Amino acid sequence: MQQVPTSTRRVGMAVVGLGGAVATTAVAGLELLRLGAVGAEGLPLADVEVAGLVPYEGLLVGGWDLDDSDLAKAASVHGVLDHRQIEVAGPGLSQVRPWPAAGDEEFCRNVVGGNTVVAQGRRAQTEVIRADLRRFRETEALDGCVVVNLASTERWPDLTAPALQTPEAFEAGLDADDPAISPGMLYAYAAVMEDCGYANFTPSLAADAPALVTLAEQRGVPVAGKDGKTGQTMMKTVLAPAFRSRALRVEGWYSTNILGNRDGLALDDPASLASKIGTKGSVLDSILGYPVEDHVVRIDYYRPRGDQKEAWDAIDLVGFLGQRMQVKVDFQCRDSILAAPLALELARLLDLAQQRGDGGVQEHLGWFFKAPMTRDGASPEHALHRQEQALLTWLAGAALAEPGPAVPSADEAAPQTRA
Amino acid sequence: MQQVPTSTRRVGMAVVGLGGAVATTAVAGLELLRLGAVGAEGLPLADVEVAGLVPYEGLLVGGWDLDDSDLAKAASVHGVLDHRQIEVAGPGLSQVRPWPAAGDEEFCRNVVGGNTVVAQGRRAQTEVIRADLRRFRETEALDGCVVVNLASTERWPDLTAPALQTPEAFEAGLDADDPAISPGMLYAYAAVMEDCGYANFTPSLAADAPALVTLAEQRGVPVAGKDGKTGQTMMKTVLAPAFRSRALRVEGWYSTNILGNRDGLALDDPASLASKIGTKGSVLDSILGYPVEDHVVRIDYYRPRGDQKEAWDAIDLVGFLGQRMQVKVDFQCRDSILAAPLALELARLLDLAQQRGDGGVQEHLGWFFKAPMTRDGASPEHALHRQEQALLTWLAGAALAEPGPAVPSADEAAPQTRA
Amino acid sequence: MQQVPTSTRRVGMAVVGLGGAVATTAVAGLELLRLGAVGAEGLPLADVEVAGLVPYEGLLVGGWDLDDSDLAKAASVHGVLDHRQIEVAGPGLSQVRPWPAAGDEEFCRNVVGGNTVVAQGRRAQTEVIRADLRRFRETEALDGCVVVNLASTERWPDLTAPALQTPEAFEAGLDADDPAISPGMLYAYAAVMEDCGYANFTPSLAADAPALVTLAEQRGVPVAGKDGKTGQTMMKTVLAPAFRSRALRVEGWYSTNILGNRDGLALDDPASLASKIGTKGSVLDSILGYPVEDHVVRIDYYRPRGDQKEAWDAIDLVGFLGQRMQVKVDFQCRDSILAAPLALELARLLDLAQQRGDGGVQEHLGWFFKAPMTRDGASPEHALHRQEQALLTWLAGAALAEPGPAVPSADEAAPQTRA
Amino acid sequence: MQQVPTSTRRVGMAVVGLGGAVATTAVAGLELLRLGAVGAEGLPLADVEVAGLVPYEGLLVGGWDLDDSDLAKAASVHGVLDHRQIEVAGPGLSQVRPWPAAGDEEFCRNVVGGNTVVAQGRRAQTEVIRADLRRFRETEALDGCVVVNLASTERWPDLTAPALQTPEAFEAGLDADDPAISPGMLYAYAAVMEDCGYANFTPSLAADAPALVTLAEQRGVPVAGKDGKTGQTMMKTVLAPAFRSRALRVEGWYSTNILGNRDGLALDDPASLASKIGTKGSVLDSILGYPVEDHVVRIDYYRPRGDQKEAWDAIDLVGFLGQRMQVKVDFQCRDSILAAPLALELARLLDLAQQRGDGGVQEHLGWFFKAPMTRDGASPEHALHRQEQALLTWLAGAALAEPGPAVPSADEAAPQTRA
Repeated sequence: MQQVPTSTRRVGMAVVGLGGAVATTAVAGLELLRLGAVGAEGLPLADVEVAGLVPYEGLLVGGWDLDDSDLAKAASVHGVLDHRQIEVAGPGLSQVRPWPAAGDEEFCRNVVGGNTVVAQGRRAQTEVIRADLRRFRETEALDGCVVVNLASTERWPDLTAPALQTPEAFEAGLDADDPAISPGMLYAYAAVMEDCGYANFTPSLAADAPALVTLAEQRGVPVAGKDGKTGQTMMKTVLAPAFRSRALRVEGWYSTNILGNRDGLALDDPASLASKIGTKGSVLDSILGYPVEDHVVRIDYYRPRGDQKEAWDAIDLVGFLGQRMQVKVDFQCRDSILAAPLALELARLLDLAQQRGDGGVQEHLGWFFKAPMTRDGASPEHALHRQEQALLTWLAGAALAEPGPAVPSADEAAPQTRA
Repeated sequence: MQQVPTSTRRVGMAVVGLGGAVATTAVAGLELLRLGAVGAEGLPLADVEVAGLVPYEGLLVGGWDLDDSDLAKAASVHGVLDHRQIEVAGPGLSQVRPWPAAGDEEFCRNVVGGNTVVAQGRRAQTEVIRADLRRFRETEALDGCVVVNLASTERWPDLTAPALQTPEAFEAGLDADDPAISPGMLYAYAAVMEDCGYANFTPSLAADAPALVTLAEQRGVPVAGKDGKTGQTMMKTVLAPAFRSRALRVEGWYSTNILGNRDGLALDDPASLASKIGTKGSVLDSILGYPVEDHVVRIDYYRPRGDQKEAWDAIDLVGFLGQRMQVKVDFQCRDSILAAPLALELARLLDLAQQRGDGGVQEHLGWFFKAPMTRDGASPEHALHRQEQALLTWLAGAALAEPGPAVPSADEAAPQTRA
Repeated sequence: MQQVPTSTRRVGMAVVGLGGAVATTAVAGLELLRLGAVGAEGLPLADVEVAGLVPYEGLLVGGWDLDDSDLAKAASVHGVLDHRQIEVAGPGLSQVRPWPAAGDEEFCRNVVGGNTVVAQGRRAQTEVIRADLRRFRETEALDGCVVVNLASTERWPDLTAPALQTPEAFEAGLDADDPAISPGMLYAYAAVMEDCGYANFTPSLAADAPALVTLAEQRGVPVAGKDGKTGQTMMKTVLAPAFRSRALRVEGWYSTNILGNRDGLALDDPASLASKIGTKGSVLDSILGYPVEDHVVRIDYYRPRGDQKEAWDAIDLVGFLGQRMQVKVDFQCRDSILAAPLALELARLLDLAQQRGDGGVQEHLGWFFKAPMTRDGASPEHALHRQEQALLTWLAGAALAEPGPAVPSADEAAPQTRA
Repeated sequence: MQQVPTSTRRVGMAVVGLGGAVATTAVAGLELLRLGAVGAEGLPLADVEVAGLVPYEGLLVGGWDLDDSDLAKAASVHGVLDHRQIEVAGPGLSQVRPWPAAGDEEFCRNVVGGNTVVAQGRRAQTEVIRADLRRFRETEALDGCVVVNLASTERWPDLTAPALQTPEAFEAGLDADDPAISPGMLYAYAAVMEDCGYANFTPSLAADAPALVTLAEQRGVPVAGKDGKTGQTMMKTVLAPAFRSRALRVEGWYSTNILGNRDGLALDDPASLASKIGTKGSVLDSILGYPVEDHVVRIDYYRPRGDQKEAWDAIDLVGFLGQRMQVKVDFQCRDSILAAPLALELARLLDLAQQRGDGGVQEHLGWFFKAPMTRDGASPEHALHRQEQALLTWLAGAALAEPGPAVPSADEAAPQTRA
């Protein structure tokens, strides 16, 4: 792969679901950063200096969406930006319009739109997606290109279907328009075939298909996922290690989420909801080392909250002498505000991995995900602080590959916000 | 130091404030463990197997208190144990009666009692305390002995007083009955002189006096402190690193505590309260790396809560694009239930350090404290997960000193609760 | 009806679901009151003195349950009483053993037990129930007798079924064993036929059937219901009137309940849950005077909570200038502790109504219920303070019927707790 | 008093503390209502139609402040209005500039400003204030005029001072520049002397002085106060009656408030804080009928909250069988958004009382206040729903005085928001 000075590197970030709240917020954030209108809050790697890590101003965002509205219009619908930010970022956002997407109502019932690929059948659709990526790379004279899936939750496909087991079977499945192949997999396949790193920020199963993991390994393309860890689950992976550290037994953990954005609406489809809750469930037992039988997770669509997701946890602990204690956590967060900067950091890190030649599953990116992909069926690490350590260690190692201006030490405390 | 098989080792734990809720709960817990009436919940090192680490059944507890009631009576006052536990542990608890204590109303106004040392003056009082320790060691045929301060909060002395600067000045101060020397320091001094490891679980300044730190180093006696990290501050040192990890800027953190036990009453003395809040304050800035100007900490005495301390935190975060989020945490905990097992683990670890010959300040015990003592003026580590790692690393190292049945790896996740 | 001095009046309270947590707690409470072991907390009418109102010590409780365990055993399962209370009340509770019940798994799937009536068919079952009531009345030499339904939630029957429209159709339906007649209706019918006042504290539809309402009116028997208003809904009917008073528009109200007792288990049957949520839903719109579109109510079975139900509400308000505010309420209550004293008061008030000759639907008892029955299809009053006023007015009127020692004024503030 | 048709009536509302957040919000609200830019949310009497009740568009606001900034500037500092509302209301707000105020740093230490009356001594200051009112009335051709005190909290004066006992002593005190007379009293006196109704929305003692109460009665001028009941105390007077209704004994009630606006800063002066907490304290005991010994109220200045006051309550209840329950309420409210519409309604009601000739203390306005003034030392009613009833009854009575288009019945449920 061609090497250019980090400071002038141009990396394309092709987003599946570009018109959604997360993607729109990410694009607006890049614009506001470029204009000096916002600080680095929320960007965990803002102060990390590693050779090859493309700066935020080197990211160019494009992508697909079922809705062809330009992002200025999308931003005004999502209600994430404040009045002033819309004014400032508006002109830049209005220049960005999603490419037609490969939607399929079978997989995502509550979200529809007219901006769809005209090609019939899965093979033809992948051809369109691949052509989009090649055009993006050439038109923008990109030094690197990654694909990030920020679409709404799909229904969970059956990963044991024959078409998903090997690259060869997958190719045959595309030709036969095999329904076992989901829309998300089309994008993951296209990314890998075009040598674009791929990250799945949604709970949908996509690059998890054995066929695609093998293909990514064969082609040396980095893949990572799945399901961005932003709100309640992030907190869970912070608190649970502490309870274990203090030997406070978790007798039960009741979690409810209320949110009112498009993601919430998609989750009103029970099949999509099951997919979402599936990725949230196993986190706790894995960290604690024992099963929490009374672990309940609810997600409810509640419009007054809009994009301002609220998560309430009621945690029951048993301490010394078997006596009980309770913790209640009410996290009044903002879904897209938490997710968008993580999506940007993922794009930068995938591009860095591509430069290093690190292909296949990126285990050190587990810090970003509710259900981290692992190699060879290993159990993922879920504790946030150990995931952070793994990421810092990889970053330090990456830096060793070439002489650079700054090398973060794995001993360093944490990715930092600016002073 | 004499080596005996770990399994038959007998270690004395002399407690300052034996009649208090924490100490009473610790003694009751040992009794209930011995009788098989409770499990290992809340005991972080229950599953850690390191050669030399005395088992819980090897701990013998004695100590001083201004109130000479036996511990069965104390337990019924504190209301920590449930009805059945009092029945089961009662006979054992009624055998334990505090030794007369060196109280001084100047230092602790709201807690009084008649069970005081008759000796006049500081020097004479230390002689009594030292005699208590020697008698304890001989009567019980102890293999090791440690002192743990679980008394109520004292007013904060002036650590720059001349008498507190060197061992020699301290000795002279004892002879001159210098008021700069607080009751807590008398116990710390006596412990060090009798080669008993010393841990300060209270917010009072005691072993922190430069004279006593130097003395402990000279004599090779381990000392650790101060202020057990159990409830709200423990949670703070779990959440703050996560906010930093995700680059969420903490704009403000409002913390209020309500509690109704004897500690709460002691804190109704504003000077004692200032001492307590002092140890809570700096934690946040240290972890985050920037000053949180709106960090407010309140402690209020509120009787209906009894020993069931409640901590409410309102946290204001600033994320991507400068947008705000909030976290509310309501921790309905039990002060003594959280503190008592930590006091027991501290005693075991001090005894292990004594066996290893690790004298002076025990930095790897920072995991236990709100305001960890450090060597040579270094800033303490406050993040719970990094404190845990330091403790595990030390434990693994300790195990290397002699061949033993089990060596925990520093890579291991966490001290574990039993399956 | 025979008049005896109030102080020596004996009233039978026949409970459907006698072995449940609410009924067991009520019986234990009567026993503990009799022994002077508890005060009058939680008994709203403890200080109300009205001629004819039977004192608590005049209540004798019997009843049916699918489980034939005596109430001492039931109490130890429910875990509502504390250790000491079980010791004190145990001998009395062990004397009470439920009569065989008319259960039907078709209507209540998750709760089963072997203590069922052997009679086949609905008509035969009503004969057994009526015989139980006659035997109760005679054996205990009762001056009055009422039936209170405290059973678990049944599935909601179709109230438009022909058999439920008139007394005649109902009689025919009994003979034909018409499945439209639910078990709960059998008890309501039997109560009315035996001149026993009937109150439905469950969300099931029973006395609501038009046939039974008419029958009660014809026979002059008081009936009331339904669904005891104890926790979250009670709070809702307190807060909503205040929001209306201050013109704060309720944009949304998210309510979740977690509970772990037998009622919670019954609600794991979706059909029973629908019945329960149905009675909770309309309260809000009725009080506010406009529809709250985002009113979400969840009930989840969560075992760690046991009988200690927890209700969390997130309320979104719009105030002056359209600006938004939020209220969060976390009610950590105890289901049976709130419900049991209300059941006792209901029994006393039904008996009083019987003495006064007030038959049919008792609208002034709406204060007790989530879904108050009304006469002639009128909309019920839901605001707690106006329901209280209606009850006090009726009590004052009742007192006028005969000269008595104390007459509460309708102007008086509230039913009082003892000083 | 001159009668004009209600629809064309012009009433002056002279505000003490015009530049504060509450007053600025009230003025902005009138402007936005006039422009049709906001609805009637938060205005409790928006749908009440009583003859003589001046419509919102008939209110003209002027007043005094230590800061002479125009209200557009004040609004941008307070941060209550959103971006769009400032744009829309800005031109109108910039026309309003406070008159010089009679400030005194002795009474209000943390709030200072240069816009003060040059007159020396209390008598001279009252002359300036009275002249302001006369000028206001004449310049604007007002049909009525009222004074509403919305200033920051003053220190609490000694109401037993001789100068405050009778009108004559007060007049002499003014001449002697008696320091017992506070700035707030100067405004109250001036209002009464100019026949302007006076309402005290602050916790300061002003019209409460016996001399001023007598003077108001003699002159037939309506006075009301004190301390607007908006947030936590409002909720307390809603919940406490419900707990009493259900006989749930309140064992303790812990209340903390955090706020970051100018009022919060003023409360950083301990003497002002004591005054504020004083008016909050007695509410609970009065409603419950017994003393709650563990009633703790905290107010803390916490800047991140700005005008968005947050109140957290931890309530401990004792129910049936002496068993305990807890309620936690987190009210994330907006101080000025709650207070401003109440101030406007007060002005309208004082003007109505003046038209009716109802002078002296207005007991029926207790609904607005934390510490309602009463006649002849009577204990005030605190329960919100009974206060509402008293107000509705008075309104219905007022309507009887003259034939009008609409007469609200005292039986009507509540002041209503618009459909």
